[in-house]
Amino acid sequence: MERSQVINFGPGPSALPESVLEEATKGLINYNGTGIGITEISHRSKDFAALTAKLEELVRTQLEVPSTHVVLFAQGGGSAQFSSVVLNMLARHRLLHPELSDEQRVMDYVVTGSWTKKAAEEARRLGGGRVNVVADSREHSADGKSFDNIPPHEAFKLSPDPALIYYCDNETVDGVQFAYAAEDSPTAFPFHLLKNQTLPPLVGDYSSSFMSRPIPHLADHAIIFAGAQKNIGPAGLTILIVRNDCLVDVDAAAKLGATPVPLTMAYKTLADSTSLYNTPPMFSMYVSALVLENMKNRGGLNTFEAMNRRKQEKVYAALKDGEGKGVFRLRVRDGSRSWMNVVFRGATEDIEKEFLASGESQGLKAMKGHRSIGGIRISLYNAITEEQVDRLVAFIREFLAQHTTP
Amino acid sequence: MERSQVINFGPGPSALPESVLEEATKGLINYNGTGIGITEISHRSKDFAALTAKLEELVRTQLEVPSTHVVLFAQGGGSAQFSSVVLNMLARHRLLHPELSDEQRVMDYVVTGSWTKKAAEEARRLGGGRVNVVADSREHSADGKSFDNIPPHEAFKLSPDPALIYYCDNETVDGVQFAYAAEDSPTAFPFHLLKNQTLPPLVGDYSSSFMSRPIPHLADHAIIFAGAQKNIGPAGLTILIVRNDCLVDVDAAAKLGATPVPLTMAYKTLADSTSLYNTPPMFSMYVSALVLENMKNRGGLNTFEAMNRRKQEKVYAALKDGEGKGVFRLRVRDGSRSWMNVVFRGATEDIEKEFLASGESQGLKAMKGHRSIGGIRISLYNAITEEQVDRLVAFIREFLAQHTTP
Ligand SMILES: Cc1ncc(COP(=O)(O)O)c(C=O)c1O
Ligand SMILES: Cc1ncc(COP(=O)(O)O)c(C=O)c1O
Repeated sequence: MERSQVINFGPGPSALPESVLEEATKGLINYNGTGIGITEISHRSKDFAALTAKLEELVRTQLEVPSTHVVLFAQGGGSAQFSSVVLNMLARHRLLHPELSDEQRVMDYVVTGSWTKKAAEEARRLGGGRVNVVADSREHSADGKSFDNIPPHEAFKLSPDPALIYYCDNETVDGVQFAYAAEDSPTAFPFHLLKNQTLPPLVGDYSSSFMSRPIPHLADHAIIFAGAQKNIGPAGLTILIVRNDCLVDVDAAAKLGATPVPLTMAYKTLADSTSLYNTPPMFSMYVSALVLENMKNRGGLNTFEAMNRRKQEKVYAALKDGEGKGVFRLRVRDGSRSWMNVVFRGATEDIEKEFLASGESQGLKAMKGHRSIGGIRISLYNAITEEQVDRLVAFIREFLAQHTTP
Repeated sequence: MERSQVINFGPGPSALPESVLEEATKGLINYNGTGIGITEISHRSKDFAALTAKLEELVRTQLEVPSTHVVLFAQGGGSAQFSSVVLNMLARHRLLHPELSDEQRVMDYVVTGSWTKKAAEEARRLGGGRVNVVADSREHSADGKSFDNIPPHEAFKLSPDPALIYYCDNETVDGVQFAYAAEDSPTAFPFHLLKNQTLPPLVGDYSSSFMSRPIPHLADHAIIFAGAQKNIGPAGLTILIVRNDCLVDVDAAAKLGATPVPLTMAYKTLADSTSLYNTPPMFSMYVSALVLENMKNRGGLNTFEAMNRRKQEKVYAALKDGEGKGVFRLRVRDGSRSWMNVVFRGATEDIEKEFLASGESQGLKAMKGHRSIGGIRISLYNAITEEQVDRLVAFIREFLAQHTTP
């Protein structure tokens, strides 16, 4: 199949802008006129230092990262950060409160989908502290077991002085996202609950929403991380925004009893070497810089925010019609629906199969729901254009017309 | 500069075959006729499963990996393995000998250069066992502080039942490599010293010699690892060969007091999911498969071994002439010299500068020695052709002619 015939609605790894990929094919052979490809040049070269600086600048300016925070580039993906975040933040807490027992050291997790569930499990595995589930969407769902909502603010049971407060902005599998709204909106992240804490140890997994819209209260975060492979670039890179006080001496903490942190996982190691402690994922960084530059040239984050808002509005509107006609059923409650991952079911499994097969035959690809929950998932990352969304909506409406008696 | 004008003698990231890169530019836009690029397809797709299987097969057949060992693909680089190796092998040892104290649990390190020095430091940092330096090249050097040799076999002080015995086949910075020779040769790895151990916990860092020649006694290794970014492909991927008994239940070991292992670092996690526990470094894996296939088509490992042997012979011969003429000085003792990284000094710093600048102007790039030791380093990885080596040798000989009075 030709690329032009396909729209890739995959959840990540996912579509990247074609013009960026075209540019990357050049860099792969000859980067910056060096006569050497980007995967072959030294990571200690001036050319690569310039690339790293540019990538940092593109993140920093578009997200308005204050000077209290560093931008870091780590090897590996989001799952590695499930561990890194815990190890670094437990080390920090140990240095602040060496007297506490593991039972007294608490890590707060807001569980709104399968990725936060997994992150909380990893925190339990690693030990060194106790996991407190701040809120769990399943307890607020109709059937008591679905991730289909953002729990109400009253339900959040934050600990007095936790080592970290962990949440995921957008649950990629379940399609549950905190609303992009004032914080008193019942499905926005309840930042106001953190107001009495001077430096809340807030950790946000932004893997599947990074750079799709501004990050509310960014400066109040201890750590924000995002695997590149959704909105940003090829898998293998994780972008981190870390507040300076979270760049702690993990060895000093280990002397006080904290779990030792593998050197490549210690944020301070990365920061001290401007993300060049060892060979970084150079190609992912290169393409990410091209993607973010392309984004900047097309109006930057606010333009993408507006575009992403329109995209999901159109898709949800079509699906709500389908709901009214008894053909589809949206999985997530209104107000908690993701801009990036639209998840729904067909009225029957046959309808789902037909929808996916029919889409596939027209080049609308990778719309199958995650194997853990089935159904349909359509991801609308930055690289999906409004024109492609219009094609999708036309396809949905035609499908509806065929499946409803007039 | 045009690519054709350049020879990239960099130590890694380093040259890759141009034909492979050309092929990769296609896959970046449209992989396998899917209409989707390789960085955009799902890592759970059939296409990618086939790629992973092919990559494994290419490693397995060329290195003759027995069925007692699995081939794994990990995110990140060699430095991450400095930690992973320790954590997994300490967990294994804990399960075998839960009664030992940390002081009694020993990790044997053979220190032959800056990478093994660093790996041993990481083992000390992580704790959970004591580091025993089996042998240290510096103690056998003329000045007492240089990594310029493989220590003699009599010097190896192996522990009775260590958690691991760690060595690095080829020290990329120092240019020190175990000889590719019968094991009674004084500079080959002394595998015979392990003969009384039923399953020696031998761990080899092959980052900069992987796939340049067969690995002696491969089946006797517990773990072999190699960052991709020298002979294999783009940075971001590490290839591992792990003996089945080293795929241990790290959680069971943690219950007995072992340091908890971050989930993405546990070899068993990787093995249980055929290296798809989370999103892998797909582009690096893709290019690596192309590189290894290209290698196979050109005669495979034995052909490359013969070629690599000839390449280094030619270069060292020219440099020895230079030594005779008082222009150069090889840093590493005969018998311990690397096939992959040829390190030497000029008689004066001016000569070094002139050599590097003159090379640079003729497109012979990235020959500067590692910043920690200075001088000159020429890397002759698989992608450097014999023709390119001939150009290099001609350059060296011309340089010598200009710097010696006839
Ligand atoms: C929100 C979120 N967090 C974490 C991850 C895990 O990322 P990785 O596969 O890179 O480990 C994912 C993967 O899709 C994700 O969507
Ligand atoms: C022999 C050896 N081991 C380990 C490393 C570390 O690799 P990385 O930079 O991928 O962490 C290197 C890097 O050059 C190396 O040459």
